[in-house]
Amino acid sequence: MERHFQKELESLKTSLIKMGSVVEENIALSIRSVTEKNRELAQKVIESDVRIDALEIEIDNAIVDLLALQQPVASDLRFILAALKINNDLERIGDHAVNIAQAAQVLCSIPDVELLNEIPKMAEITRTMLKEAIDSFILLDPVKARAVLKTDDQIDNLNRTVIRTVIELLKSNKQTAECGLELSLISRNMERVADLATNIAEEVIFHTQARVVKHHAENRK
Amino acid sequence: MERHFQKELESLKTSLIKMGSVVEENIALSIRSVTEKNRELAQKVIESDVRIDALEIEIDNAIVDLLALQQPVASDLRFILAALKINNDLERIGDHAVNIAQAAQVLCSIPDVELLNEIPKMAEITRTMLKEAIDSFILLDPVKARAVLKTDDQIDNLNRTVIRTVIELLKSNKQTAECGLELSLISRNMERVADLATNIAEEVIFHTQARVVKHHAENRK
Repeated sequence: MERHFQKELESLKTSLIKMGSVVEENIALSIRSVTEKNRELAQKVIESDVRIDALEIEIDNAIVDLLALQQPVASDLRFILAALKINNDLERIGDHAVNIAQAAQVLCSIPDVELLNEIPKMAEITRTMLKEAIDSFILLDPVKARAVLKTDDQIDNLNRTVIRTVIELLKSNKQTAECGLELSLISRNMERVADLATNIAEEVIFHTQARVVKHHAENRK
Repeated sequence: MERHFQKELESLKTSLIKMGSVVEENIALSIRSVTEKNRELAQKVIESDVRIDALEIEIDNAIVDLLALQQPVASDLRFILAALKINNDLERIGDHAVNIAQAAQVLCSIPDVELLNEIPKMAEITRTMLKEAIDSFILLDPVKARAVLKTDDQIDNLNRTVIRTVIELLKSNKQTAECGLELSLISRNMERVADLATNIAEEVIFHTQARVVKHHAENRK
């Protein structure tokens, strides 16, 4: 029974790694669809979200079975509940990839030099945060997870810079209203992805150290 | 043991009802802070979010204990996992109330007649959705839950109308860029609250009917 349980835990971990890599890929593609103004790529992101939704349900069902049949306690139980939440967070990140891709489909060219720098910079940090958060879960590494928490402030600052730049562009009429709103939407969606990556990292810290980091701003310093 | 377990389940339900009512109140106040342009009210919403965060952690810990000590199966297990997710969704709704309140703090007056109608209409439907979603969970009523799913389309349409109106305002320069972005942000946050209310309703349907409604768009028709 015990060996069987360990095998099922491993299988759950493998499914989440798969889910994580599909979501990571979709975020990467959605960002490319923005920077390259590639509508086909954006369409690909939107269409492949069904796969992420299906994976979420699959993992959710596996977790219910695991809890019902094996009745885990202590650290195994905490691991499985962390997996349940991370699965949910990954699916939501997938939704943000769709939002970004949808904005890319109506996006005009990005005309401003500063935005041309800020958006890919933000995208790069967000992708790294997501990757590191998933890695921290795979390795159950709280140090790596804490690094993700620290990076979140950078994204918040970049988001504010982008929004400020968009406002300046709108005021000086260098940018049409549609483009401005889409750019701010892309920026805010990336910020949400960074938040969700932070959630994942918090779950890892919670699981490995069995104490709650969430809502404790001092841990982000 | 069994009677003790039922008592703990009831206590979990009571905690979630409390969490739901605090979140509902905060959403209502955040919307009032927008429509009444009341900065003190907005500040109150932002400050009271710590209470929601504390409640989330309290309920989360109660759920971990319940699973570890009672090792529930079948419908009790599904109920507890639904509670875990709903708890998480409610905390996120609380975060959107903070976002709306923050936008209200920098919001200029809403000058446009159409927006003056659309935003409170959207707010009213969103609040009702949230209330009905929480009620559907308390009563474990899948019919009520399905009604929430149906309403989500209305909110998506209203959100699109608001964004379109904001774009027109920005183009005609009747609205400053800051106000336009804040208005679109408020609208999008309400749309996210409606989505999360929909998630809660989906959990209720999943729990009561033990089948997955999520990601099945046909159920929203």
